[in-house]
Amino acid sequence: MIIKILTLFPEMFYGFLESSIIKRAQENGLLEVEYINIRDYASNKHKKVDDYPYGGGAGMVMTPQPIFDAYEYAIKDFDKGVKARTIYLTPKGTTFNQKIAVDFSAEKQLVFICGHYEGIDQRVIDTIVTDEISIGDFVLTGGELPTAIMIDAITRLLPGVLGSTESYEDESFYSGLLEYPHYTRPEDYNGLKVPKVLLSGNHKEIDRWRRKSSLEITLQRRPDLIDESKLTKLDKKLINEINNERQLK
Amino acid sequence: MIIKILTLFPEMFYGFLESSIIKRAQENGLLEVEYINIRDYASNKHKKVDDYPYGGGAGMVMTPQPIFDAYEYAIKDFDKGVKARTIYLTPKGTTFNQKIAVDFSAEKQLVFICGHYEGIDQRVIDTIVTDEISIGDFVLTGGELPTAIMIDAITRLLPGVLGSTESYEDESFYSGLLEYPHYTRPEDYNGLKVPKVLLSGNHKEIDRWRRKSSLEITLQRRPDLIDESKLTKLDKKLINEINNERQLK
Repeated sequence: MIIKILTLFPEMFYGFLESSIIKRAQENGLLEVEYINIRDYASNKHKKVDDYPYGGGAGMVMTPQPIFDAYEYAIKDFDKGVKARTIYLTPKGTTFNQKIAVDFSAEKQLVFICGHYEGIDQRVIDTIVTDEISIGDFVLTGGELPTAIMIDAITRLLPGVLGSTESYEDESFYSGLLEYPHYTRPEDYNGLKVPKVLLSGNHKEIDRWRRKSSLEITLQRRPDLIDESKLTKLDKKLINEINNERQLK
Repeated sequence: MIIKILTLFPEMFYGFLESSIIKRAQENGLLEVEYINIRDYASNKHKKVDDYPYGGGAGMVMTPQPIFDAYEYAIKDFDKGVKARTIYLTPKGTTFNQKIAVDFSAEKQLVFICGHYEGIDQRVIDTIVTDEISIGDFVLTGGELPTAIMIDAITRLLPGVLGSTESYEDESFYSGLLEYPHYTRPEDYNGLKVPKVLLSGNHKEIDRWRRKSSLEITLQRRPDLIDESKLTKLDKKLINEINNERQLK
């Protein structure tokens, strides 16, 4: 996958670039990331990239020319005939989730546009942006951190990036449930003990305990994630147990 | 505000540290961030920080000892008597939003624990974590990027960090609506024009257009954000207009 990032602050990505999975994916030729500094494409003498908003108000807006020109440079070697998915991070966008990550992971090339200040000129969005995405309902300084988040989530899904498919199949948002608690050695840490069932060696009991824990925490924290139609007969039995135990408390 | 970050990959934060608002907040003494490498606190000879999960299964779990000891170091100079809010980033957590950012921005000291692999031993969560937070419904490699996101959102809210309160009052999730489109110079960019009303100088009309645009995009993309009880008489009139225009299309 080839990713081009249009940003005013490429240095914000440096630490992220060096991180394990992204670094390895690049070294193995599975991912190629290019940072394009929007300011380098400003045609005005002072390399200015923002200006006052028409209609007044606080804050500055990123001007169209530098972004359009940086974009033309970004896509110059892309497959012709296919419009590259071009993602603009904005609180107005569709909320990012694992399904969207899976969707993007099937692309050969992606462009990210990182906005700053009050945002970018709407004409850029109307002309070249294919996907407006929000990372969540909070206010951030710019699009760089959410872009890094999306690249992390997408890169993990590229074939060959993770060691084995196992390493993510158990995780939350794959199984549709939140994960059960994890424990590792020692069995007793200053009096804090590992649940006995996990030490039993009885795999049927362990699976049951884990499934029940997953159901319990999901019911408690994120009941919206539970898809009734996907519950097995055992799941329904475990949910009954959980409800009975709750009533006893 | 003092923030202590327990992480296996402090280098992932370096680029972020250098970014405008976070950097300025630190230079102005409004924010102090310390990175604590969990591995430095591993008491075993090989500085191992993870181990196999009890009960079997794929992946590794971060062991309790290095995290507990790194935590003790982190809070050693904190106010006694007040348990520091200690945040663990996990898909199981409460979904982060602006309200939570506002809540955390009132704290004097925060601890973040960044997990990796399959996560951290549950006994750490049960003992020292006060807040389990999720950044969204997607799978990431570790807690570093979501921690950076949270610190960005929180730091923007600290008094004195942003130039003026104006710079965020208009933004989405403050007004409760998504933002109207922004335009800046030039008026005509290769045939792409700025809406005439914004050039009119008629501020009443501009305000009306912006409010209507905000309502329209929010109704279309995030109707869940609209709080009927907070709608003004004008808002209701504008919504009627929007609905009538939709029916004509």
